[in-house]
Amino acid sequence: MKKIVPKILKGFRDYLPEKMIQRERIIDIVKNIYKRFGYEPLETPALEYAQTLLGKYGDEGEKLVYRFRDYGNREVALRYDLTVPLARVISMYPNLSFPFKVYQISPVWRAEKPQKGRFREFIQCDLDIIGSSSMIADAEIIQIIYKVMKALNFDQFVIQINNRKILDGLISYLKINQEKSLSIFRTLDKLEKIGVQKVKEELSKQEIEKKKVEKILEFIKIEGKNQQILNKTKKLLQKSIKSQEGIKELEAIVNYARVLEIPEKNLKINFSIVRGLDYYTGSVFETRLLECPDVGSVFSGGRYDNLIGMFSEKNIPAVGASLGIDRIFSAMETLKMLPEKKSTTKVLVTIFDKSTEVFSLKLAQQLRDLKINTEIYLGKGNLSKQFKYADKKKIPFVVIIGPKEIERKEITIKELKSGKEKKIKTEELKEILKLIK
Amino acid sequence: MKKIVPKILKGFRDYLPEKMIQRERIIDIVKNIYKRFGYEPLETPALEYAQTLLGKYGDEGEKLVYRFRDYGNREVALRYDLTVPLARVISMYPNLSFPFKVYQISPVWRAEKPQKGRFREFIQCDLDIIGSSSMIADAEIIQIIYKVMKALNFDQFVIQINNRKILDGLISYLKINQEKSLSIFRTLDKLEKIGVQKVKEELSKQEIEKKKVEKILEFIKIEGKNQQILNKTKKLLQKSIKSQEGIKELEAIVNYARVLEIPEKNLKINFSIVRGLDYYTGSVFETRLLECPDVGSVFSGGRYDNLIGMFSEKNIPAVGASLGIDRIFSAMETLKMLPEKKSTTKVLVTIFDKSTEVFSLKLAQQLRDLKINTEIYLGKGNLSKQFKYADKKKIPFVVIIGPKEIERKEITIKELKSGKEKKIKTEELKEILKLIK
Repeated sequence: MKKIVPKILKGFRDYLPEKMIQRERIIDIVKNIYKRFGYEPLETPALEYAQTLLGKYGDEGEKLVYRFRDYGNREVALRYDLTVPLARVISMYPNLSFPFKVYQISPVWRAEKPQKGRFREFIQCDLDIIGSSSMIADAEIIQIIYKVMKALNFDQFVIQINNRKILDGLISYLKINQEKSLSIFRTLDKLEKIGVQKVKEELSKQEIEKKKVEKILEFIKIEGKNQQILNKTKKLLQKSIKSQEGIKELEAIVNYARVLEIPEKNLKINFSIVRGLDYYTGSVFETRLLECPDVGSVFSGGRYDNLIGMFSEKNIPAVGASLGIDRIFSAMETLKMLPEKKSTTKVLVTIFDKSTEVFSLKLAQQLRDLKINTEIYLGKGNLSKQFKYADKKKIPFVVIIGPKEIERKEITIKELKSGKEKKIKTEELKEILKLIK
Repeated sequence: MKKIVPKILKGFRDYLPEKMIQRERIIDIVKNIYKRFGYEPLETPALEYAQTLLGKYGDEGEKLVYRFRDYGNREVALRYDLTVPLARVISMYPNLSFPFKVYQISPVWRAEKPQKGRFREFIQCDLDIIGSSSMIADAEIIQIIYKVMKALNFDQFVIQINNRKILDGLISYLKINQEKSLSIFRTLDKLEKIGVQKVKEELSKQEIEKKKVEKILEFIKIEGKNQQILNKTKKLLQKSIKSQEGIKELEAIVNYARVLEIPEKNLKINFSIVRGLDYYTGSVFETRLLECPDVGSVFSGGRYDNLIGMFSEKNIPAVGASLGIDRIFSAMETLKMLPEKKSTTKVLVTIFDKSTEVFSLKLAQQLRDLKINTEIYLGKGNLSKQFKYADKKKIPFVVIIGPKEIERKEITIKELKSGKEKKIKTEELKEILKLIK
């Protein structure tokens, strides 16, 4: 057994208790909202057959899938997102009842170039509605995004929505080969990252005439109030049946959102939002933080009516979205919005010396029986060292039970912040509940 | 995009909502006890440098580590347990305050031969105390095991404890080369699995004289009350300083356990318990279910005072244990101890028809504002189909808001189990809280 230099892989992170507690608080908020809307949890394996995952994420996505051969020489891959494994599940279990409303909170892995806000392992919080083609489903996903963002205390955010059918219709209206639409979407998705010029170059490489490229780029720049955009686009693309279908869907969502009291400042139609993944078929949405735009979209998704059909005889309509906890966390850190760092432990019971340790042990257990999160000090060192330990760990109360206390059948409890001390009779230990709340 | 047959890798499982809800309830119970004792959460990456994990699990354990080369040609491995990554963390972050009490609830991966109760991916719930050599720490781990088992409603279980130093002392007392002790431990660990005869054969292959093998096997069979065993062993191994040290530690734990009111029927000294992993140095423990012995140990651990030293300049003492959620789950399933299967959703709001959907949407949101987990029906079909859906999903209450209800400014709520119906005025919606509790 030789000495090993301890190190962590690039793009991966340890969550130490302080950050972990903060992250868990965020996840709990999200989970409770998902449950409030009637979603139930699902978990799939980290490893899948590679062929389950491949052919779903576009060329560039696919390059980021962690793949290897296992001991049985099977080609396996680490989960790249939670949507494709969900589609596999839907097609494997015939007894599910639809609509199937489900959430998943699990890590995914992507061999990305590590950079600020981009990690190789990160947690996604997905929610999906399988088996409903109603636009109420799309609106509900948007409503939940809105509720989650508000619950996390965000106000300056925009859920940007679009519908791929509109652009699809434009593409065929412009007499561009329909087979090119996925690659066009992938290119448009990079607009923000690589800029207009590079997008034009990429589209030219796909043998799309310059004039048509200009038309597309002009179209996705349309701005205004949601209803104005809808009216304008209805006229503009009146000859495209597919576009009209997309516009109708988008309009339905905007109307439902109004009923659900989602302010228009938080929900905006934006035709430049197309998403990079291959499997979206209708609505697509992204959520941007106005005060922290560089983290990218924190809550994205869309409708994927054909994905389940890739595994199954029949197509089942589906819509969903995914919250990137690590991006939200990083934004909340930047914006100083994280909940206060504190311990989940309320009381540290000190050990005065060897002769009194049994009393400390019993007392700690009594406090736990009162449902108080209580730690007993297990290190070496005198009371002063034990107090410092509590202070460093941000444990708010310290209890002393030394020879004097034992003799008087009482304990001393001290609040570290205020320095206030109080004696409590051991037979009235319940009194402590009033003190520590 | 060709059709893919949906399948899952052998040894891996999907957790569909029904089981997932049950498993989450178990995990919540465990997590709350860990927090009650002052432990804080930690999470490490799924992937580590392979060299971080290797050389810790014994030859046979090591063969089960999922290893591969990543795109950067680094040799990486999937987490095999939570203890070794914890040791890496401890040696990487110099600012941690000790004793460091920490819990981890995360999946691990082992390329095991899949069989009943053995999976290739399973969740471990670990708790560890780093930086304390006090036997109170070992006793606390045992106390928590006891509390967790009780909280999960187990009564017929035994926490079996031993201390490796005792056998280590015996080995050197028998003048067997001390370097062989790890391989002896690994063989003894298989006793239950392969039987006495095979253990003898394996020990002979390690060039241990037959007479000495008999002595070891005789020793680990010692039975009786804990104090009797301790007294007997003290005499038997009085010449071995190392054994005496182990006996003293074991005795201290047994005494603390008595103070903590852990019944002797749930805590028994058993010298045949050695654990297979290389890193244990003192106390070792396993927890057996008397009514379901074939799931093996459900909660195991021990003291590993040298593991952190493999990564770091200085050794830091440590003790911990790991609950196998999937084994416990499987046992609880067998013993019919799982909490009742039910939905986390309380109310299904139906949609009468297109003309009333906006009322349903608004009502659902009002119910959620009352903190009621509420689903709105998003499928197609009439009320009868919607009722069937609620019934299948075990949602206890269904709300109807049709044209009549809208006219009268009320809703109809029906409890599916009893069939009871009630009308509630929409302006007195809060009344619903009394009904559904």
